[in-house]
Amino acid sequence: MTKTARQRSTCPIRYSLDLFGDRWTLLVLRDLVLHGKTHFGEFLASDERIASNILADRLARLERAGIITRRPDPDDRRRQKCRITEKGLTLTPVLLEIAAWGASNDSQTSAPSGFAAHYYADRAAFYRDHGRLIAALVDDDEAASRELRSR
Amino acid sequence: MTKTARQRSTCPIRYSLDLFGDRWTLLVLRDLVLHGKTHFGEFLASDERIASNILADRLARLERAGIITRRPDPDDRRRQKCRITEKGLTLTPVLLEIAAWGASNDSQTSAPSGFAAHYYADRAAFYRDHGRLIAALVDDDEAASRELRSR
Repeated sequence: MTKTARQRSTCPIRYSLDLFGDRWTLLVLRDLVLHGKTHFGEFLASDERIASNILADRLARLERAGIITRRPDPDDRRRQKCRITEKGLTLTPVLLEIAAWGASNDSQTSAPSGFAAHYYADRAAFYRDHGRLIAALVDDDEAASRELRSR
Repeated sequence: MTKTARQRSTCPIRYSLDLFGDRWTLLVLRDLVLHGKTHFGEFLASDERIASNILADRLARLERAGIITRRPDPDDRRRQKCRITEKGLTLTPVLLEIAAWGASNDSQTSAPSGFAAHYYADRAAFYRDHGRLIAALVDDDEAASRELRSR
C-alpha cells in the first residue's frame, strides 16, 4: 500500500466526514437526536426542505453505518420508523458542539438563552444532565441491533 | 417575517452548517488548526486533493466570516498566508469531536493511540493541555483583526 493510500483512509476526521460530513446528513441527525423525529415525512417537513431523494439516500447510508435502524412502524406497518442506535447516539457531542457554536455566533439564534454558556462551562455536566433525555430516543431492540451488526 | 423564514434563519445548527457544513470546509479547517498549514499550495497537497477552485471559494468564505485572515506572506509577498483567527479557533472543539469519533470508530485510524479515550475522559483537560499549542497558530495581529471586524 502506498503512503498516500494509507493516509487517505486513516485520518480520523476524514473517516468521520466520509460518513456525516455534509449538511443534509447533519441536519437529519439533528432531527433524529435533538428533535426526536422518526418518520420520513417528519424529516421532509423540516424548515431546510431536504429533497426526498437526498433524504432517502442519507437514511440508507446511516442505516448501513449502524447509526440508525429502520423498521415498520408498529402503529402503522406501511410506514417506516427510524430510530437512532447506541452508536448513533455517540454523535450527540458533535451535534451539540455545532449547535453551541451557532448559538454563540448568531445574535438571532433560537437556541434557549444560556445554552451555549452552560454547555461551554461544563460539557460533562451538560451530557450528564441531558443524556438520559436523549438516550430515551435510542432503539433498544436487541434483536434489531444484532441484525444490524451481523450484516 | 413568516414563521418559516424566521425558523430557517435561527436554528443554531443550521447557522453553523451554512458556514462550515461541508466536507471541504471542514478539511481546510483541519489543515489550518490541527496541521498548522498556511499556504494555498499546502492545502492543495492534502491527501484528499481538494480542487483549486473549491479551495479558493472556501478560503474566501472563511475570510468573509472572520474565521481566517489572508495577507501577503512577509517571507514572500507574492504568496498569501492564511491564519486562523481567535473566532476561528473556537471551532477547535468541533474538529476534535469529529476527530475523536473517527478515531473511536475506525480500527485503521492513524490517530495517536489513546487520543479518543483521553479526549472523551476529560474534554476540559484536553483543551487546557493542548490549547496553548493550538493558540500559537492564531493570527494575533491586532490591526488585521480590527480591519476584519470593521468590514
